[in-house]
Amino acid sequence: MTHVPTLQSFIAGRWIGRQGAQVLRSAIDGHGVARTHEEAPDFAEATDFARRRGLPALMAMDFQQRAARLKALGKYLMERKEELYAISQHTGATRADSWIDIEGGAGTLFAYASMGTRELPSGNLIHEGPAMPLGKQNQFAGSHILVPRGGLAVHINAFNFPVWGMLEKFAPSFLAGMPCIVKPATATSYVAEAAVRILQESGLLPEGSLQLVIGGTGDLLDRLQGQDVVTFTGSADTAARLRANANLIRHSIPFNAEADSLNCAILAPDVTPDHEEFELFVREVAREMTVKAGQKCTAIRRIIVPENRLDAVAERLSARLAKVVVGDPSKEGVKMGALASHAQLEDVAARVDALLASSELIHGARDGFALLGDNVAEGAFFAPTLLKSCDPHAEGGAHDIEAFGPVSTLMGYADLDEAVALAARGKGSLVSTLVTRDPGVAARVVPAVAAWHGRVHVLDSEAAKESTGHGSPLPQLKHGGPGRAGGGEELGSIRAVKHYLQRSAVQGSPSMLSAITGEYVRGARVIETEVHPFRRHFEELKIGESLLTHRRTVTEADLVNFGCLSGDHFYMHFDEIAAKESQFGKRIAHGYFVLSAAAGLFVSPGVGPVLANYGLDTLRFVGPVGIGDTIRARLTCKRKIDQGKKSPSGKGQGVVAWDVEVTNQNDELVASYDILTLVEKREG
Amino acid sequence: MTHVPTLQSFIAGRWIGRQGAQVLRSAIDGHGVARTHEEAPDFAEATDFARRRGLPALMAMDFQQRAARLKALGKYLMERKEELYAISQHTGATRADSWIDIEGGAGTLFAYASMGTRELPSGNLIHEGPAMPLGKQNQFAGSHILVPRGGLAVHINAFNFPVWGMLEKFAPSFLAGMPCIVKPATATSYVAEAAVRILQESGLLPEGSLQLVIGGTGDLLDRLQGQDVVTFTGSADTAARLRANANLIRHSIPFNAEADSLNCAILAPDVTPDHEEFELFVREVAREMTVKAGQKCTAIRRIIVPENRLDAVAERLSARLAKVVVGDPSKEGVKMGALASHAQLEDVAARVDALLASSELIHGARDGFALLGDNVAEGAFFAPTLLKSCDPHAEGGAHDIEAFGPVSTLMGYADLDEAVALAARGKGSLVSTLVTRDPGVAARVVPAVAAWHGRVHVLDSEAAKESTGHGSPLPQLKHGGPGRAGGGEELGSIRAVKHYLQRSAVQGSPSMLSAITGEYVRGARVIETEVHPFRRHFEELKIGESLLTHRRTVTEADLVNFGCLSGDHFYMHFDEIAAKESQFGKRIAHGYFVLSAAAGLFVSPGVGPVLANYGLDTLRFVGPVGIGDTIRARLTCKRKIDQGKKSPSGKGQGVVAWDVEVTNQNDELVASYDILTLVEKREG
Repeated sequence: MTHVPTLQSFIAGRWIGRQGAQVLRSAIDGHGVARTHEEAPDFAEATDFARRRGLPALMAMDFQQRAARLKALGKYLMERKEELYAISQHTGATRADSWIDIEGGAGTLFAYASMGTRELPSGNLIHEGPAMPLGKQNQFAGSHILVPRGGLAVHINAFNFPVWGMLEKFAPSFLAGMPCIVKPATATSYVAEAAVRILQESGLLPEGSLQLVIGGTGDLLDRLQGQDVVTFTGSADTAARLRANANLIRHSIPFNAEADSLNCAILAPDVTPDHEEFELFVREVAREMTVKAGQKCTAIRRIIVPENRLDAVAERLSARLAKVVVGDPSKEGVKMGALASHAQLEDVAARVDALLASSELIHGARDGFALLGDNVAEGAFFAPTLLKSCDPHAEGGAHDIEAFGPVSTLMGYADLDEAVALAARGKGSLVSTLVTRDPGVAARVVPAVAAWHGRVHVLDSEAAKESTGHGSPLPQLKHGGPGRAGGGEELGSIRAVKHYLQRSAVQGSPSMLSAITGEYVRGARVIETEVHPFRRHFEELKIGESLLTHRRTVTEADLVNFGCLSGDHFYMHFDEIAAKESQFGKRIAHGYFVLSAAAGLFVSPGVGPVLANYGLDTLRFVGPVGIGDTIRARLTCKRKIDQGKKSPSGKGQGVVAWDVEVTNQNDELVASYDILTLVEKREG
Repeated sequence: MTHVPTLQSFIAGRWIGRQGAQVLRSAIDGHGVARTHEEAPDFAEATDFARRRGLPALMAMDFQQRAARLKALGKYLMERKEELYAISQHTGATRADSWIDIEGGAGTLFAYASMGTRELPSGNLIHEGPAMPLGKQNQFAGSHILVPRGGLAVHINAFNFPVWGMLEKFAPSFLAGMPCIVKPATATSYVAEAAVRILQESGLLPEGSLQLVIGGTGDLLDRLQGQDVVTFTGSADTAARLRANANLIRHSIPFNAEADSLNCAILAPDVTPDHEEFELFVREVAREMTVKAGQKCTAIRRIIVPENRLDAVAERLSARLAKVVVGDPSKEGVKMGALASHAQLEDVAARVDALLASSELIHGARDGFALLGDNVAEGAFFAPTLLKSCDPHAEGGAHDIEAFGPVSTLMGYADLDEAVALAARGKGSLVSTLVTRDPGVAARVVPAVAAWHGRVHVLDSEAAKESTGHGSPLPQLKHGGPGRAGGGEELGSIRAVKHYLQRSAVQGSPSMLSAITGEYVRGARVIETEVHPFRRHFEELKIGESLLTHRRTVTEADLVNFGCLSGDHFYMHFDEIAAKESQFGKRIAHGYFVLSAAAGLFVSPGVGPVLANYGLDTLRFVGPVGIGDTIRARLTCKRKIDQGKKSPSGKGQGVVAWDVEVTNQNDELVASYDILTLVEKREG
């Protein structure tokens, strides 16, 4: 036997494990790829290191800086991606399968880097506003903040995507400022270990922010505390066992599970075999059955079609599956590789047997099938297998048994209600695809199906041109389904980051809330300086710096001129008769005139640090402005975000949001909004 | 023994239970107030009734209609509130305590009615947008929807607030469209039963939307499915036991727990005994110790003050506690009533004994104390009890033992870091109060403390005038804390409603997403009619109805006129030299001119169904408009909400949001925003 390298855990800044233990074998030819290590990591040391070293290192950065770091990590990983492709093929994956894992993983780092930069503040606190007055005088207000939990995250991953599965959890937790301890599934842990080595060698990981456990988790879960978080991807049975861990329950430790589920694809009755959508349906199902040899938690396990299309779908799908070349992924032309291990092979075979109790075999190879490649006799190959349910409503069949391989079951329905009912029989799934040409069908089916699914993918000829497919979770969208799928929520834009933060309501005077949230809260004490706040550079501006402008009396001439200039001759401004009968009983100024005049009141005309007013949010015309009313504006620095970007002149710049209140001669609010500006730094 | 009435459960539309069982006794004089019933409810029938009758009845209404129904229920309950006050006093509650329970409960119905009307759409689907293009041509996009889960909610409540505790969970779940099965704590279930009878007699409850269980839950939890939800308020031990229920775990049934916790109040070092805030601190602590005889999950159990203030706080707090008259709440002058039962009394006494192992008694009455009232010898009274910790860092003391009565422990700290560390020793609490005069202290302490708390209340002399207090959860703000407090999230504005809905990502062509979400998604097919959409009444308008306006060439005269009229002479519009050096290399039009001109392009000047443009959201100036550019606007009906309101003329009206895209001669987007209008109905 040739030398089989021993994998190592990365604990407390050291790679540990010298003594080889379990041999992990190639799914293609059965040779030993790596061994786990014999030495048990010290989980007291690991958790302690995460708390004492990882946490402060992450907290020394802010959201924006961690987002930038994720981007750098993604770039570094992409530079060394071929190292990962080289070992990934031992898992049975084709190059296309590995692309999902490796480049999909790096892509998730990029996506969270980008979302973090765009949507998160500077600092380590998210203000989930707006603040609400809780008393009539606005001396007591409430709002919500999200802060780092001050704990660590344990991520327990599945064998099918050792890189992506790790990084899709690492990215949001890192952004949230949580050190991670990652435990990949043992079968493919050699790929995860290689990825962690690369990330570690980048020098970009703050000390203690990522630890790796090869092998069992020992007493790790028993060492967690209330501020920690556990995530899990894998089988529903394991999820249930871990969720019931006494220590997790005692400390209400969040446990986010994403379990394999019995996802379905539904062909709507409006699609005939002559439509392009019919072929799209067949292609999508065939792809989801065979990508990664069907070892995807999102794979289509149930194919729900109109009864009168059963034969047509069976025929076209079988024809397509027959063309799938199975074998050694390193061979040209191979479209589907092996299952991850012989244990998986046996498991899938047993479950197909169980499914056959209530279904018939439409396509498959129970007694051997052609394989492309040398030395593949010891590989864990399984043929694409299509079954047809004898009774779609029976218990114990396709709605209950999951064969985690290239296996799917076809079943017929009489009408859309039955289709929805069959979809729901999965008792909670990650994703469902609906193929239809009719928006009315989508409007009816999708909300009903959504109650049982974490994601619903609607495919038609328009969407098909750009569709990312049934099986692909995206960083922007929720991944995780109810019930059998584990009830968790991974990914899903910045919401995934919030799962690793603690939300707290805050109450107090507006001045206190401003100080806490780092955002100006209306009613707080403002800072009035001699200098116009638009003349201050980004670094100099303080939250609460404010300008109360001079006044302007609104005249009839203003209405006339504004109507002429804008072309807006709405009766409320110009028709004395109709305006008298309106809710205000008189002609009033255009809202957009008030907005424009307010800008005229607070603008600082010369060249200065304010580079642009690029937007405006939550404008409300709170009260009417009549002819003869006198308005003024208060402009207050509300929020500053430093995204580390450069201005056109090469200096630094940041985003500054300003609170604007326009009031009349009675100090009544007439218009309220935020304006968004780019403000240059004094220094680069 | 006088007649003791037997309580009944309300199951499947019938009041059941004739045979009396356990006697529930008055906390004041020990007389029998009510009995539980002997007959066990049939939970198969109850869950079946909720699913088959309650769910369709609730789904026959939409969010707006259910919000209106909550308001009507609140009004009806207020009309009959004295019936509840009359029996509430048997629980040991003073009138002020009962106000929190009864009027606080009705207030929660009103608050959710109001939030639902203001923030939720018509229909039964929430679009959590905006939709995001997922391909470069925007033929495939993604978004999120929240839909009714199609299950039922089981609410298991604590004994201390039988009305509020029920309604604060009922309100958001009803709004979400979930039928409820409510199980009050047995000790005070006679109050909850009376409240349910009133709600039932209102005739306002859809059939099956609210069922009541008096006594044990039997096999109820074992009958739940993946679409159901369980909420729990009570002890951490019971929470842990229920959370581990095998059926809940097997189906990933959401379990939201709010457990008693060891809440604290922190006095900051900047507050001296001469400051008003010192007295505020003492008053707040005394109130939270004695309201409801300290039987509040939010009560202050730990009083954390600077070491050099220990004596002053102990003295002033003792003096205040000494003035608290304890006794029969029906007697004039009584400020604190009894604990809910003798069982509670024994429990609290035992825990005070345990606390005394590491603390000394500062104020209290271990051997009897004065009580006001007749026949109070059999009452469950306990004196306000202040302890002082001998070692604030010791294990097994005030950070670990909860005496659920008028009991709190004082402890000293050396500096703010130690104060934060002591607060965290509660291992997760519902709420903490910080009393400080210094916003800098709040900015430092609150985010740190927030990691361990569901709510942080900052008190100073400004906030005190309107503060709702440490102990009061508000419908607008999160209630629920991490760790020991159960890790749940009750209340918290519309987020609480979302806990009873299922979130699903949706992907498809913009046209499909528009049909599914009921909101126009940019890129979807639009409907262009002969009639200007602003001439269409609310009922007639369809989502996607759209107007592409005529064009307008922007001239130098426009810039000049707009500058003169607005007073905005920013260099980017008027200074040829500086504008040349700017990012655009030339003078450009004012953003607000573009906005105003767009309004001029799409306005329909005469009197019509559009009553007002009351606001504008997410305006982004995407590209510059230069002199000579020609702009046009596309206005598309995006969203309609029918809040059931009347227009000034007495007809109905609704909110309509319009998507606006302003483009230039090259079809490039230059400005993008939503405008908000009120549109009259044709009919009343």
